[in-house]
Amino acid sequence: MSRTVIRGGLVITAADEIHADVLIEGGRVAALAAHGQEAALGWTESADRVIDATGKYVIPGGVDAHTHMDFPFGGTASSDTFATGTQAAAWGGTTTIIDFAVQSRGRSLREGLDQWHAKSDAQCAVDYAFHMILSDVNENSLKEMDLLVAEGVTSFKLFTAYPGVFYSDDGQILRAMQRAAGNGGLVMMHAENGIAIDVLVQQALAEGRTDPRYHGEVRRALLEAEATHRTIQLARVAGAPLYVVHVSAEEAVAELTQARDKGLPVFGETCPQYLFLSTDNLAEPDFEGAKYVCSTPLRPREHQAALWRGLRTDDLQVVSTDHCPFCFRGQKELGRGDFSKIPNGMPGVENRMDLLHQAVLDGHISRRRWIEIACAAPARMFGLYPKKGTITPGADADIVLYDPHAEQVMSAETHHMNVDYSAYEGRRVTGRVETVLSRGELVIDQREFTGHAGHGQYTPRATSQYLS
Amino acid sequence: MSRTVIRGGLVITAADEIHADVLIEGGRVAALAAHGQEAALGWTESADRVIDATGKYVIPGGVDAHTHMDFPFGGTASSDTFATGTQAAAWGGTTTIIDFAVQSRGRSLREGLDQWHAKSDAQCAVDYAFHMILSDVNENSLKEMDLLVAEGVTSFKLFTAYPGVFYSDDGQILRAMQRAAGNGGLVMMHAENGIAIDVLVQQALAEGRTDPRYHGEVRRALLEAEATHRTIQLARVAGAPLYVVHVSAEEAVAELTQARDKGLPVFGETCPQYLFLSTDNLAEPDFEGAKYVCSTPLRPREHQAALWRGLRTDDLQVVSTDHCPFCFRGQKELGRGDFSKIPNGMPGVENRMDLLHQAVLDGHISRRRWIEIACAAPARMFGLYPKKGTITPGADADIVLYDPHAEQVMSAETHHMNVDYSAYEGRRVTGRVETVLSRGELVIDQREFTGHAGHGQYTPRATSQYLS
Amino acid sequence: MSRTVIRGGLVITAADEIHADVLIEGGRVAALAAHGQEAALGWTESADRVIDATGKYVIPGGVDAHTHMDFPFGGTASSDTFATGTQAAAWGGTTTIIDFAVQSRGRSLREGLDQWHAKSDAQCAVDYAFHMILSDVNENSLKEMDLLVAEGVTSFKLFTAYPGVFYSDDGQILRAMQRAAGNGGLVMMHAENGIAIDVLVQQALAEGRTDPRYHGEVRRALLEAEATHRTIQLARVAGAPLYVVHVSAEEAVAELTQARDKGLPVFGETCPQYLFLSTDNLAEPDFEGAKYVCSTPLRPREHQAALWRGLRTDDLQVVSTDHCPFCFRGQKELGRGDFSKIPNGMPGVENRMDLLHQAVLDGHISRRRWIEIACAAPARMFGLYPKKGTITPGADADIVLYDPHAEQVMSAETHHMNVDYSAYEGRRVTGRVETVLSRGELVIDQREFTGHAGHGQYTPRATSQYLS
Amino acid sequence: MSRTVIRGGLVITAADEIHADVLIEGGRVAALAAHGQEAALGWTESADRVIDATGKYVIPGGVDAHTHMDFPFGGTASSDTFATGTQAAAWGGTTTIIDFAVQSRGRSLREGLDQWHAKSDAQCAVDYAFHMILSDVNENSLKEMDLLVAEGVTSFKLFTAYPGVFYSDDGQILRAMQRAAGNGGLVMMHAENGIAIDVLVQQALAEGRTDPRYHGEVRRALLEAEATHRTIQLARVAGAPLYVVHVSAEEAVAELTQARDKGLPVFGETCPQYLFLSTDNLAEPDFEGAKYVCSTPLRPREHQAALWRGLRTDDLQVVSTDHCPFCFRGQKELGRGDFSKIPNGMPGVENRMDLLHQAVLDGHISRRRWIEIACAAPARMFGLYPKKGTITPGADADIVLYDPHAEQVMSAETHHMNVDYSAYEGRRVTGRVETVLSRGELVIDQREFTGHAGHGQYTPRATSQYLS
Repeated sequence: MSRTVIRGGLVITAADEIHADVLIEGGRVAALAAHGQEAALGWTESADRVIDATGKYVIPGGVDAHTHMDFPFGGTASSDTFATGTQAAAWGGTTTIIDFAVQSRGRSLREGLDQWHAKSDAQCAVDYAFHMILSDVNENSLKEMDLLVAEGVTSFKLFTAYPGVFYSDDGQILRAMQRAAGNGGLVMMHAENGIAIDVLVQQALAEGRTDPRYHGEVRRALLEAEATHRTIQLARVAGAPLYVVHVSAEEAVAELTQARDKGLPVFGETCPQYLFLSTDNLAEPDFEGAKYVCSTPLRPREHQAALWRGLRTDDLQVVSTDHCPFCFRGQKELGRGDFSKIPNGMPGVENRMDLLHQAVLDGHISRRRWIEIACAAPARMFGLYPKKGTITPGADADIVLYDPHAEQVMSAETHHMNVDYSAYEGRRVTGRVETVLSRGELVIDQREFTGHAGHGQYTPRATSQYLS
Repeated sequence: MSRTVIRGGLVITAADEIHADVLIEGGRVAALAAHGQEAALGWTESADRVIDATGKYVIPGGVDAHTHMDFPFGGTASSDTFATGTQAAAWGGTTTIIDFAVQSRGRSLREGLDQWHAKSDAQCAVDYAFHMILSDVNENSLKEMDLLVAEGVTSFKLFTAYPGVFYSDDGQILRAMQRAAGNGGLVMMHAENGIAIDVLVQQALAEGRTDPRYHGEVRRALLEAEATHRTIQLARVAGAPLYVVHVSAEEAVAELTQARDKGLPVFGETCPQYLFLSTDNLAEPDFEGAKYVCSTPLRPREHQAALWRGLRTDDLQVVSTDHCPFCFRGQKELGRGDFSKIPNGMPGVENRMDLLHQAVLDGHISRRRWIEIACAAPARMFGLYPKKGTITPGADADIVLYDPHAEQVMSAETHHMNVDYSAYEGRRVTGRVETVLSRGELVIDQREFTGHAGHGQYTPRATSQYLS
Repeated sequence: MSRTVIRGGLVITAADEIHADVLIEGGRVAALAAHGQEAALGWTESADRVIDATGKYVIPGGVDAHTHMDFPFGGTASSDTFATGTQAAAWGGTTTIIDFAVQSRGRSLREGLDQWHAKSDAQCAVDYAFHMILSDVNENSLKEMDLLVAEGVTSFKLFTAYPGVFYSDDGQILRAMQRAAGNGGLVMMHAENGIAIDVLVQQALAEGRTDPRYHGEVRRALLEAEATHRTIQLARVAGAPLYVVHVSAEEAVAELTQARDKGLPVFGETCPQYLFLSTDNLAEPDFEGAKYVCSTPLRPREHQAALWRGLRTDDLQVVSTDHCPFCFRGQKELGRGDFSKIPNGMPGVENRMDLLHQAVLDGHISRRRWIEIACAAPARMFGLYPKKGTITPGADADIVLYDPHAEQVMSAETHHMNVDYSAYEGRRVTGRVETVLSRGELVIDQREFTGHAGHGQYTPRATSQYLS
Repeated sequence: MSRTVIRGGLVITAADEIHADVLIEGGRVAALAAHGQEAALGWTESADRVIDATGKYVIPGGVDAHTHMDFPFGGTASSDTFATGTQAAAWGGTTTIIDFAVQSRGRSLREGLDQWHAKSDAQCAVDYAFHMILSDVNENSLKEMDLLVAEGVTSFKLFTAYPGVFYSDDGQILRAMQRAAGNGGLVMMHAENGIAIDVLVQQALAEGRTDPRYHGEVRRALLEAEATHRTIQLARVAGAPLYVVHVSAEEAVAELTQARDKGLPVFGETCPQYLFLSTDNLAEPDFEGAKYVCSTPLRPREHQAALWRGLRTDDLQVVSTDHCPFCFRGQKELGRGDFSKIPNGMPGVENRMDLLHQAVLDGHISRRRWIEIACAAPARMFGLYPKKGTITPGADADIVLYDPHAEQVMSAETHHMNVDYSAYEGRRVTGRVETVLSRGELVIDQREFTGHAGHGQYTPRATSQYLS
């Protein structure tokens, strides 16, 4: 059994910041010892590999709980495969992704899940797991939910948006929630009133308001807040917990806050794009705004303060990427002259850890909170903890050496995601991933990719650990 | 032009309580004069009729903004015709009703309105007007809304309940609200999440929970609150006002309160049954609970305090009856063994003024607030003020002499509604209508009916006066 | 008994807008009749005086519930006597003022009240009443409260501000509230945390921040909100109602809103200066800011929206002036170099009705709400209704003919208050008082003063009519 | 350097639950290793002592952030000395206490601190630190605050209660908060409106309501909420954080929740007595209620749900004991016939960890949250983390072996606190402390006391770690 020692760094977890050496045996964290103490001194001699982390942060590999690799949507498919996307994730310090398998209308969950296993099998550079999108809630799919929970797909996404595609009506949502209440599954919600939004979309197009910025205008913040409130109430009726994905509107945060004050098991995720970008980007000229089309949409800059506050007060628990890249050329361009035809989605799986580190420097969050919202909380939320999301004896040795002083400029020129633009082009940030281990193996070694497709394993999940 | 003087009473309006004599000329209030002052002394001599109101209240005739006469629902029709129902209204001190004309699916508003005119024409004992129920929001019906507003049907009811019958989806609701925002109409909302409720209904029936009390259990308070919140948000998006009918749940009142604190033009109505009855009644044995089946349903007794508080704080503005009687024998009985087949509705048009006067004696509201919620506010809300709802020079002489000391026992034996039970059987209250004038004519004269079918006139309405 | 008829105007009360003629007999409103109806036709012939109100509003005389005439404060006294101040009130359409008699420390309430009677007796141009300021709550003064309530001084002002002067501690406040709960009195509160403010004042002065604008900075909005919340809680403990004077901060309105949502008998007053002026005025150069020094202080412009919203939602019920003028020369100048020595107070008794009419034109409030907050609500709040504050048979004939189309420019050049500046210098507004009757006598006749000192009578008050 | 290994237990911290062995070197945690992994195997051989924790929890020693040993109050002194009190703490699994040194009026902080050092020096069985009570805020004591922060007394308690004893007025509080904002100190607040309470106390006594239960009645929940709100606002004005001690009222929790939703650095502590006892205890006959007299007082049972919810939602962060025992005989009896003379305080330092473990079993909180509120959060809040409050490399080896299955009955017969009654007499709980190490030394060894007075060291503290 190979032994690796990481020594001399500052180990940061959601709970602690300690100067400690980390001993890795057989792909897992075997022990932590105070740096310089006798206990750790012997390790170095017997180790197969010693990694010097002096001056670096030693942090858990990121857990991105919301990605869409090779995702068919809007008549095309997201441009990252599981191969390219997970390699980019590794570059960005993320060692686990949870992607969304999709049930097609009229088909079984099993069929969708099999398809996603086929796409991802032997492709991934880092570990991965699946949520399941329910597009067709009926007697059969409800029963299948139990089976999926039992085999490690313990979360189910429903949509109040996208009528005719992923949309479920309130009765279907209620039934899925009731089932989840029984089998321990966690319902994830894309909360926007899609039925009302479609009316506003049609009206905008009919009036010639076709530019990308109207995407942001018709998907009103109030309609996100409304669906958030509604699905919280449905969850209360069902006696089920609820996880709201990609929260972007201040008013939606307020709904979560109000529910959580009552002690309800209601959770919220936001994404870097809502924290760092705004409707200003959607309004960029020459159709450049299309790069920033995603749903929920970017909001006016003023909403950001509420999101940061929610992250600090724990009314929002998780920052994921909703990584769903479409190239500007050939894909985003499908929506020229009709914003409703722009494929919804943005790249980001590679940028998350760095952007959130920048938020530490900017004073929005503490270092421990950085690790919590990016690693520990998503792992706990989706039943992967403490295997993933922390550095503790027994955990998978998914570890990142992070240089907190290195500077970088984000750019499509240098990123590893398979997409022809960066949402953060030209943005200068401080902090950079230096080295990444996945289950003890070097995937990035001093900014050189040393991993390979197929190293990443499918990882079945327990039910949410946020509920106990 | 005939002249009537009512003298010696305490004239109570929403604004004032004054000892004044009232002069009526040509069906309208011509003047008010301080009792005993010189100005009034001459009136008596020249009057055709002098009514002595000493020891009595002189109040505006009640305005019941929510009735369903001869209303086809649940495979049967409500048991009061416009003839019997308006006569009962008069007995109860109500001199104006606003009934709901119904658009059938696939048909025009005009066709529905014509039908209701046909039913009511030359039948009514007191004046009446119409709201319009929109069952089918589409391009044509939206355009018809403008025409109806122009001719005096200025309010439109939509339902988030009753899928497949009156239900509109959120897009239809939004479009109707947008139209109302443009033409000055007021959208009225039956706010319950009918889609989710239907799931709970099916589950209850499947589990053998078929008694009337399950009607109250499946129509969860949270699902009323949810739909209230949702439609408030839709109204904000549309820039339209909103009037929520038959509010019964404490949580729904809270939604209205929260919206009104923001200054939004959002209004709420409750009904005597929610103020005086409870799920205890729904649980009465031998299927007697069916008498109390209506939607929104009766709530546990604890909700009543919030409704009274809402009436005091003006978070609720109106008390209507939602009068929609079905006989226990032959009609309510349709739902034996399946509560979902019980026709929804209760009698009450005759009881409202008395029950609310009892609430004055019980300390829930002041005398002026009694008149406000029962007369002035509904008139203002629906564009009938000051013609209806108050006693002021120029107003219609719809006036009730009310004996505040008389006692009565409510009973199906003695009431005038065409229904075989009273929801308040055996209830003893203090206060009774003695005499009723409608446009200056005696309809009830010292507890004798002196009116006739056809006296009551159809009364076109202006747009809501609550919004200026 | 002299008879006057006002005919052809639009009579506006808090409740109604009607085209009616008003008959006045013996100083009171004898009758109202629909204009043009037979009932009114005879009046003209028999009348001693007929006033043509065609094209004018006929409104109740204003009730200003918060004035300080000849008020000793800050080592000087307010510059309007009861003679000059009530004449100015009449010019501005206000026919009743409620002024504050002051208990001096160590002295009885009676002694203070006698002193105020002496100052005002035979001086006033319009009717007046008194509140009592409690500066020294003790066993004796608590007992005196009962006596004062019995004789018509039914409201008592306490201060959480001005330590060493008017300040009462929370125990004294609680005891006064308990007493009021027993005798029907209404406690009025100047709600600012004076103890904390004094610390900030000393710190500002020590740091050389001595200009008038620092008056606004040290009297923090949060410290108004705090004292508002605190005294609301004390009132709950005492079981007493509470009226908070001169509310200026958005956060204080929020406290009132929250309390009122619970159904608590808590009321709030604001003043024109908070609705129309802001800290921008306090920052005017050359010590001009001193003109706008009052407490609570003017707030940043952003607070105004919350005040207007509060007036619309009835979370604020009354607009008074807190009229307490000090001349710029010789009085305000006492505070050059030390803002804490600037006498606190502003002129305004003459401007209130006009400014609020302008608010109608600006869309902030409706015409009826104008009359409600300026006439009816203060009269009701302080036990003067319906004698004052409305036009109804039996009411005092305090009536204003208001020209809604006349334009005026506010200025110290033209105003009638005895003060050398106008807080609204140069402000152009539409609407002007034309004629004023006080108990049926012409005080202003087509913009000529026809009244005299001594016409105005002291008016004992009933307990608050807002509580029944 | 002595080496101890604790092996085979379940290590529970605020963050993790792992099966790990713990290596202790020189009084500190040197390393943690996954149980059964190679890394840990060698430790046993080289260890001086191996403790078998199979079937036990291995948890951080408790941190009780609120005790009063040998505390002079109400004319007597609390009955536990530092010697007896810290020994009892050890028995109960608490290895650090933070006690309150007291500034006397007219004296310096230094003098008070010296006195508390003298009382505690060489007496303690476990480690201890000090907060400072400010009884006299003035220029000198404000300056001393800086010095104390520098030397490790980084928190300062003020009182809105106890006028004439510990009470500070709002100006003094504001100034202390401003100073803390500058020097990094944390202001702790006893939040009850003592001025108002004293009025109610006098009234109760005057009316013959002298029994212990009136202690609970006069100290109204609203007056705790009021002072909580007030001091939150003062902290906002000062730009300082705030820690509210012994929160007991639902309404006070609501104030904290509201403040925390805004993102304010406001914290709350509750105590076991508020979670497990109620006014029912205060009403026990034969003056037994006196045993439960403490301030804030016990509340009606209904308040407990809000406290538990606050602990779950993190609106309350810490559970301390406010341990301040007075014997029933001779001490509590001072208040026979006058509840205001009953010394305020209850024993509890020995019971806290067990009661909170019972709360885990009762489903109120999770195991990790148990450790968080009892160990990690108080350590972090008061600058002792990660030295105290967790088990991680580098931390002090303050470790408890806890038997989660053992049963015990709480009783004065068996407890080790120097007081003649138990507040939990006869209460059966599951879970018991077996063995306690303080800095690696056995203080309790399989339920035998093996420690000694003087082992416990004074521990200077950093500033709060909750604020970064």
